[in-house]
Amino acid sequence: MNSRSNTFNQQLQSAWASQGSMLCVGFDPDPKRLPSALQGKPEGIFEFCREIADATADLVCAFKPQFAYFASQRAEAQLEKLIKHLKEKYPHIPVILDSKRGDIGSTADHYALEAFERYGADAITVNPYMGFDTIEPYLKHAGKGVIVLCRTSNPGGSDLQFLNVSPDGQPLYLHVAKLAAQQWNSSGQISLVVGATFPEEIAKVRAIVGEMPLLIPGIGAQGGDIDATVKAGAIPNKPGTGMIINSSRAILYASSGSDFAEAARAVALNTRDALRAAAAKSFY
Amino acid sequence: MNSRSNTFNQQLQSAWASQGSMLCVGFDPDPKRLPSALQGKPEGIFEFCREIADATADLVCAFKPQFAYFASQRAEAQLEKLIKHLKEKYPHIPVILDSKRGDIGSTADHYALEAFERYGADAITVNPYMGFDTIEPYLKHAGKGVIVLCRTSNPGGSDLQFLNVSPDGQPLYLHVAKLAAQQWNSSGQISLVVGATFPEEIAKVRAIVGEMPLLIPGIGAQGGDIDATVKAGAIPNKPGTGMIINSSRAILYASSGSDFAEAARAVALNTRDALRAAAAKSFY
Repeated sequence: MNSRSNTFNQQLQSAWASQGSMLCVGFDPDPKRLPSALQGKPEGIFEFCREIADATADLVCAFKPQFAYFASQRAEAQLEKLIKHLKEKYPHIPVILDSKRGDIGSTADHYALEAFERYGADAITVNPYMGFDTIEPYLKHAGKGVIVLCRTSNPGGSDLQFLNVSPDGQPLYLHVAKLAAQQWNSSGQISLVVGATFPEEIAKVRAIVGEMPLLIPGIGAQGGDIDATVKAGAIPNKPGTGMIINSSRAILYASSGSDFAEAARAVALNTRDALRAAAAKSFY
Repeated sequence: MNSRSNTFNQQLQSAWASQGSMLCVGFDPDPKRLPSALQGKPEGIFEFCREIADATADLVCAFKPQFAYFASQRAEAQLEKLIKHLKEKYPHIPVILDSKRGDIGSTADHYALEAFERYGADAITVNPYMGFDTIEPYLKHAGKGVIVLCRTSNPGGSDLQFLNVSPDGQPLYLHVAKLAAQQWNSSGQISLVVGATFPEEIAKVRAIVGEMPLLIPGIGAQGGDIDATVKAGAIPNKPGTGMIINSSRAILYASSGSDFAEAARAVALNTRDALRAAAAKSFY
């Protein structure tokens, strides 16, 4: 199978099936938390992420590098190298560049080039505040995934997203879910970010968006409940699909010693199994 | 004067006074539109921006590099070099890194390091969709400017920003203006982005935010009306202050020939003078 010819959504469907996993490993490589052997090494960030990727690749449906951690360290070349490694070695696993871009069309054209041509990502996260014409430029890259922020799991997430908007009197994040599902997704490239903090909100989003994939951060270090999350985001009669459930810090920093990759694998394995068990419970 | 010890807001106040200008030159260096002598040159993007900066520095209150145009070209080193040049040669002119970041606190910490330590910018643009705790990390960098998207001038800007929100029944962008002015700005570091397309909306924001600086894109190539914009954003009895009025493409691409810097200066001079005339009209 040459997965590069597939769309992000096809890659995801295949990965859910062949990997039997909805786990996504997120790469948020904080230089202060690297194992001591890698601290200050010229390509320490790349080596750290590569080792964790190689230790967890059979357990995941996606990888998600977080742009900020590379940008603050002047490590764009290491991000390029990481994604190249991932796509060469694991062409069946989609890579999401988590950079939450949001800007006018002519600028978004350049962010799309950055994500899809420079870095070779299969999908990108974007911010909806500036509206559809700031999301459209990414959709012009046929088959690439465009994952729109809907409901975020951080404490301030409610500041705007939970405001009721007219005319329908629903919170802003549900309005975004509606726009995404009913108006913006004619090409089938859109997914949504919905945090794990409030599972009942995941269920409300799922009710609006049908089978659209949901990227769900907030389990692991952020404390979201796995059973409740998986139940809330499940697609009827299709257990084990529909969600990209991200864990970053709990996996990356499972050990600060030289066994960091092995420890990361152990946590990833537990998390995958907990997600599998939750998917089975939500089905039967 | 060592302006590096001043806050972004003090730098702006000084620049409005000493430069007699509210014009900001935005650097959106599209590689396809560079003068032929610079196309494909190893540091062509830097050279292009540097020449335009040197030709317009006496006419502006701020410079604003747009991150995407550097990122798509693998030109982070040229962005570093450009800002270093600007801050060494024109320490009295604040530099705004326009990257519209928006992410959870631990990630925002890294975007703040990127903007303020790696690139040495004086201010950054940020997106409010994820709420205050995603803006706070930038405010921990004392004196740095944090410019929050409020109302954007692109066609899709109304998709979310113009939704009426409860309990006050006002459009979302005015709610953001209120949050920014009344709850988020205890340190005095916040400014707002308000597009020039709808001057009556600038006036509504001004009425809410007092003397808070407004970054106003959308004149020049985007077609905003200078007189109406300046009148709408004016601070009573303080003409020529309160606004950072950005023009990028109309100045950068005034000529595609070898006279590009001279042509850029001519357009910048006309724009500055039009802004001055408008400020005088709004005052008298």
